[in-house]
Order: sequence, then C-alpha cells, then structure tokens
Amino acid sequence: MVERRKPIWVKDAIENVMKYKKHGDIELISLDDCDGRFLAEPLVADHDVPPFDRSPYDGFALRAKDTKNASRENPLTFKVIDEIGAGQVSPFKVGNMEAIRIMTGAQIPKGADCVMMLELTKEEKGSEGTSISIKRSLNEGDNISFQGEDTKKGSPLINRGAAINPGIKALLATFGYSKVKVSSSPFIGIIATGSELLNPDEDLVPGKIRNSNGYMIESQILRVGARYKRYGSISDNIDKLTEMIKQAIDECDVLITTGGVSVGDYDYLPEIYRRLGANLLFNKIAMRPGSVTSCAEKDGKLLFGLSGNPSACYIGFELFVRPYIRYWLRSEQPFLRIISGTLKNDFPKPNPFSRFVRGKIVYENGQVFVEPVGLDKSGVVTSLAWADCLIILPGGTRGYMKGDHVELFLLDDQQGSDEPWVEAKFSKL
Amino acid sequence: MVERRKPIWVKDAIENVMKYKKHGDIELISLDDCDGRFLAEPLVADHDVPPFDRSPYDGFALRAKDTKNASRENPLTFKVIDEIGAGQVSPFKVGNMEAIRIMTGAQIPKGADCVMMLELTKEEKGSEGTSISIKRSLNEGDNISFQGEDTKKGSPLINRGAAINPGIKALLATFGYSKVKVSSSPFIGIIATGSELLNPDEDLVPGKIRNSNGYMIESQILRVGARYKRYGSISDNIDKLTEMIKQAIDECDVLITTGGVSVGDYDYLPEIYRRLGANLLFNKIAMRPGSVTSCAEKDGKLLFGLSGNPSACYIGFELFVRPYIRYWLRSEQPFLRIISGTLKNDFPKPNPFSRFVRGKIVYENGQVFVEPVGLDKSGVVTSLAWADCLIILPGGTRGYMKGDHVELFLLDDQQGSDEPWVEAKFSKL
Repeated sequence: MVERRKPIWVKDAIENVMKYKKHGDIELISLDDCDGRFLAEPLVADHDVPPFDRSPYDGFALRAKDTKNASRENPLTFKVIDEIGAGQVSPFKVGNMEAIRIMTGAQIPKGADCVMMLELTKEEKGSEGTSISIKRSLNEGDNISFQGEDTKKGSPLINRGAAINPGIKALLATFGYSKVKVSSSPFIGIIATGSELLNPDEDLVPGKIRNSNGYMIESQILRVGARYKRYGSISDNIDKLTEMIKQAIDECDVLITTGGVSVGDYDYLPEIYRRLGANLLFNKIAMRPGSVTSCAEKDGKLLFGLSGNPSACYIGFELFVRPYIRYWLRSEQPFLRIISGTLKNDFPKPNPFSRFVRGKIVYENGQVFVEPVGLDKSGVVTSLAWADCLIILPGGTRGYMKGDHVELFLLDDQQGSDEPWVEAKFSKL
Repeated sequence: MVERRKPIWVKDAIENVMKYKKHGDIELISLDDCDGRFLAEPLVADHDVPPFDRSPYDGFALRAKDTKNASRENPLTFKVIDEIGAGQVSPFKVGNMEAIRIMTGAQIPKGADCVMMLELTKEEKGSEGTSISIKRSLNEGDNISFQGEDTKKGSPLINRGAAINPGIKALLATFGYSKVKVSSSPFIGIIATGSELLNPDEDLVPGKIRNSNGYMIESQILRVGARYKRYGSISDNIDKLTEMIKQAIDECDVLITTGGVSVGDYDYLPEIYRRLGANLLFNKIAMRPGSVTSCAEKDGKLLFGLSGNPSACYIGFELFVRPYIRYWLRSEQPFLRIISGTLKNDFPKPNPFSRFVRGKIVYENGQVFVEPVGLDKSGVVTSLAWADCLIILPGGTRGYMKGDHVELFLLDDQQGSDEPWVEAKFSKL
C-alpha cells in the first residue's frame, strides 16, 4: 500500500490543477448582500457621469455673454430669478442679465452657460427681490461639469472577478445595480483523517491532539471566497473513509482531505483513489513543506489530499486550491500575488526543493522587509496566525542570509496575479 | 442657520472622538462562527505544546544506553516489541535491546529516551518476530520533541482585539476553544440626507443622482467589523430628519449621517444638534477632502456627520469612525496603520490643509511606490474602488513631485496601529 511517488514541480502541479478549472454559475443577489462577493460580469456605467451638466460649486448660473464687460471698475448687476438645490431643476430659463442661485451638484438651468462662484459675488436684497453684482467676466462653460466628462454611459469600469469592496459597492449603487450578478461560491468538502484527532470540545487524552487543520482550512476557504461542508474527522479506516469520500464527491464541487498522505504505514489515500477510479494528477511535489500534497480528479471534480502537518496543509491550500477557487469565482487573476522584499533574518538551511516559509512583512522607510515567523520554538505554534506572506526560497539554492532579496506570496491580498509562480531556472529537482 | 465653523487638527479630531471610546460587550460564540470576529480576551494555551514527549519522525523508540556501542563495523540488533501510530499509546515499556516502531507525532513509549529515524535502520522479519539493526549510537533525548518545548500551558499567544484569521482559528481549535469569547459588534445607524438622492432601483430623473454614499459606508462598516442599520435616505426636511435621528440614537450605538453638512443654505445638521441638545465636538477639520466632517455626542453616543461628497465621506469614515469601532472591538491597535512609500506621479497642488489622496500601492523591487488614483477625469468615478491606501500630504506643504517620500494609511489592513497619525510639525492651519 506504500505508493512510489514521483515529485513534480510546483508550477506543473498548479498547471495540472488548472487544467480542470471551471467557472461557477451566476447568481443574482441584492446589492445589500454583495460585500466580499465576486463580480460575475464587468461593472458598466448605466449613465453618463456627470448625468447632466452640473455645477461643481455653490454660486450663480448665468450667461457668459452678459458678463463680458464686468470688471472691478464696472461691476454688473444680475437679477436672481430662482434658487435651486441639489436634486432640484429650475422651471425658469436664464435670460438677459439674470442669474439663478445654484448649489453644488445641481443641474445647470436652461439658458445659463457658466457659473460664478458664490464668494465672487455680492448679494443685495431689495424691494424688487434679490440681485447680485459681479466684477469679472466668464467664458462659456466656466465652472460647469459637463455631462459624461468623467465617464460615458456603457463604459466598463471594473473587471469581472473583482471582490466587491466599499468603492465598488458605491459604483454598483451609482449605476443602478440594485441586483448584482455574482459568481456562485463553490462548496468545498473537508475530511480530516487521522486516528489521533480530537474535537476542540474534547479533553486531551494521552497521545492525541485536537483537530486544528480542519478548522484552519475552513477559515482559508472562507477567506478566499468559497463555502465548505465539514464531513468531520475520521480515523484511518479505509472502508469508512472511502464511503465518506464518495458521498462528499457527490455533494461538493471540490474535496479536501487532510492527513493520511505521508509514506507511513497507515496511509490509505492512494488505495482509495484506486478504488474510486480517480485520475491521479500528482502525489508528490518538489517543495517543503507539503511535499506529499496530492491531487486526483474524479468525474471532473478535484480531490486535494493535503498534508496533516499544519504548515504544509496551509501552504498546500494557498498554492493549489486557492487559484482553482478564484477562477471558479471568475477572477481573471486567480493566482497568488507576488512581491519582492528583503530578508530581515538569516535562513541558512539549504533548499534542495523549493521552500515556502511563513513570513511577516515589515515596512521600513518605503522598503519591504520580511521576517520569517516560526523560526524559534514558540513561534512554531503561532506562525500561521502571524503570517501575512509566504517567503519563496527556490529549490537548488543554498541558504539565504539577512539582506538577501526574496519573492513573497501575499496571503491577505484580493488583487491576485494572472500567472502562477514560475520556479527560477536554477531550481533543481 | 449658517454655522460659523472653526477648523481643528486631524489629530485633535481623532482624539476628541476617542475621548468617548468604549469596549463593547463580550459574546460567547461557536468556533464555527468566529471567522473575521475579534478576540475579546487573549488566546491562551490550555496545554503544553507538544502535549507529551513525541516523535518528530517515523522510526524506532529505544534506549540510548543500548545504542552506545553501535557502529558501521558493529551493527546492533533490537527486538521490535510494538508498533504505534499517531494517537496511539503503547502498553509496553521498552527494555534492554528492545525498540517500538513509532510514527510521526506519536507519544514516546515508556522506557524509551530517544528515536532512531526509520531510514537509518534495517528491518528483518524472522520466525521470532521483527527486529532492526542500527549502525550508530544515540544520546538521551535525540529526536524527541519534549512536552512544552514549543509553548507552556497558560502562555498568552494572541492579543485580544485580533481579527480571527485561519491561523488564529487553528490555534483556537488546538487549545480547545469550542466556544470563543468575541467582542460584540457595534450597531451603526446610517442616514443619507439630501433631496437629490434616488435609490439604486430608481430610474434617473433630471437633476438627481442615486444614493451611493449610504451603500459605501455600509460596506466600510462591514469591512471594519461592525454592523449597520439603514434608516434610508431622507430629503432635507429638518423636522423629519430630527425625528429620524432621535430614533436612530435610541436604537444604535453610533450614528452616521451623510450629506447636509456643507455651508450651503440647506444645511440643517448644526440646528438639529442644537435641538437634540448634543454636545458638538467639532464641525470643521483642517483637511481636504472632508473639511466639513462633524461629530457630536449625545448621552455618550457619537453622531458623525460625514460629507455628502463620496471621497470626503469615505475618508471621514476611515479616519474618525473606524478607530472608534476598532476600539469597541477591543483592538489594542485601533488606528489606521501607516507605512511610507515613494510617489509615482506629480501631485503639484499646494496643501494649505492636510490632504488625503486615494492611492494604490505598487511594489517594485522591494520598494513601496504609490500612485494617486482619480487624478484623471475617468479615475474620479472609480478611484474609491481601486484605492488601497490614502496618501497623506501634510498641511502647510507645497506640491509633491514624483520620487518624493510620503506616508500612507493602509485601508485593507487588519493590524492597525496603537497611535493616531500626528501631523508633521510644519503643518499650518
């Protein structure tokens, strides 16, 4: 039952997974419920912005030609015939030596072709009504925001696949998307295997630990924008496990198992893949941690076998499951975003395989630095809590030292990348 | 009804708000529902990690003293008396020249004091059972992860106020938090004022625009970790508005109004504050945009009056409302996190007041650059969607040029800062 495993490149593993990529269905949901969801189609302007010629200032709308002779020496007086606030439209047409008081954002009234700012006018109230005097001339179009000058009706503004943030929600409201087309989220089944696992509400007993990988993966699934169904943890019984996996494949879009994939004597996953008639994509990757990450395909659905080691499990999800989910959500940039930074600590271990180290970004004077987390004993426990990136140390490299430049996968990022990480050419298997 | 407004510093405005800071109540919720919530108390280890002496490798547990004479020339043979997987405990005690096969993570059996790695042994199966031979010696404690060496029971691992991410959820599961104490989220009431406002499902009519600020603020509220109650948009009727605000103060923890705070003729908010007997904290800030941001206090509850201008509204929320909410959620770092970066574009406008420009961070070769978004006409519409930071241009400065260093508030960040931004000394009102 021990499987001979041939390691493949990280890049090839990602590409093998993405051969089975597909878009999820489209759902129409209320604008109220769209936060954090993913646009299923580009956001398009349903009207010009501004939607009408409008005043960017508080002031008076009038005709430029009437102001031609205004100067400090020759102030001109205009009769104020109406007053309009934002949202109002004047029924009057501005005529010769007339003005209409206008508020910021209000529509330019008929007849007027420019706006004199409030602070450049002097108001006089008399028995015949209000008038203003001005001391300078204006040209046609002065202080008018013209219809469509910011955006034309029909312009695509935001790509499909974008995660809806406050600014995008404002655009959706502005352009009348009271219902929003979003991608449906895939359902990810989770099975934690291993007879050593206790539930969080169970007391510790000798030899056992509590299941934390399942909860961690659930949280990673939510963070990336999908939903999960928990099939519980199960001890290493091959028949029960096969049954549970069959059921999960039926009910879910993707299945993740954790544990049960190392080369120890109790690893049943390769045998289960055979029983299911699943098509094995890979069961070993030239990386640390997570070398025993596996993936198989059954009826077009992917079965990810992540390591039982917490860090390996976490990283396996981010590298291989995340892009599959993000593509499902119609992202055009489903892969992890990469930036570069400078190491703040030595990391002298050689890297026969590509190594991914949990890291924390530190910004100093406009530069990106990164600290590996979990190098010391106590950090091992909390390293996944503090990590906001994965430091990439390509295979075939000697150790890295403080001050070396490294590439980083961002973990909290919503932007993503349109191409997967490509191992440096000097990497060796 | 026009209010004389005295501008105050940004820093002073933040401090005035934070004088009324308070912690929310504590809720006990299921571990399953805790993603994105905020720890109400530090996360503490309920047991040692590792919880028992365990093997970090697959191999054989045995006694170091029995291996003393092992060498390539003198291989020693041990009788294998048991086999234990993760989660199992052997009933046997390892005696003289005996070994127990042990899997990664399993508890070291009684009698054994070291572990020989599997790949350094040669297994032989005979009629009397299995035996192994080894060719090197071990010391007591070799290849054992000792109980408590990573973390001692009772150690605080994560601060209160931390947002629960996948790594923290894994820790909660590990340490038996099947129920988690989290901060209750404040309810923020929202009233969008302005007679020009249409709902997103209404057709545009002359002179009017759709309400987008309300939806944007709701999304900002969710992003920072609070909940909202929408009181709808209301036209500029002072009696109705006063009634609605009274009701909202009763029902919510914080109230946000948008619009109705500029110095135009139709601004009722100062008058409403008077009618309510609210204590005005400020109604003008030396900043752009958002100078007419106001805040008042009534019965210990804060009423924020944000500008009707989308950018000013957005920025007013992030600068003043967000830290109040984050403190409520028991964050010890409730303020916006600041990093520095290099401008990628000229921003030649002088800054008589502190200016906050929506920006997008660009990482290049380990450096942080920032591009103002919304400088061109079409960008104005989408700038809030693309912004991931606010570029800080302190008051009293001339224009900034490409290559200049600037400070940035991060918008998508969960880490925060324990102190508010302090205006540079050279700022002038």
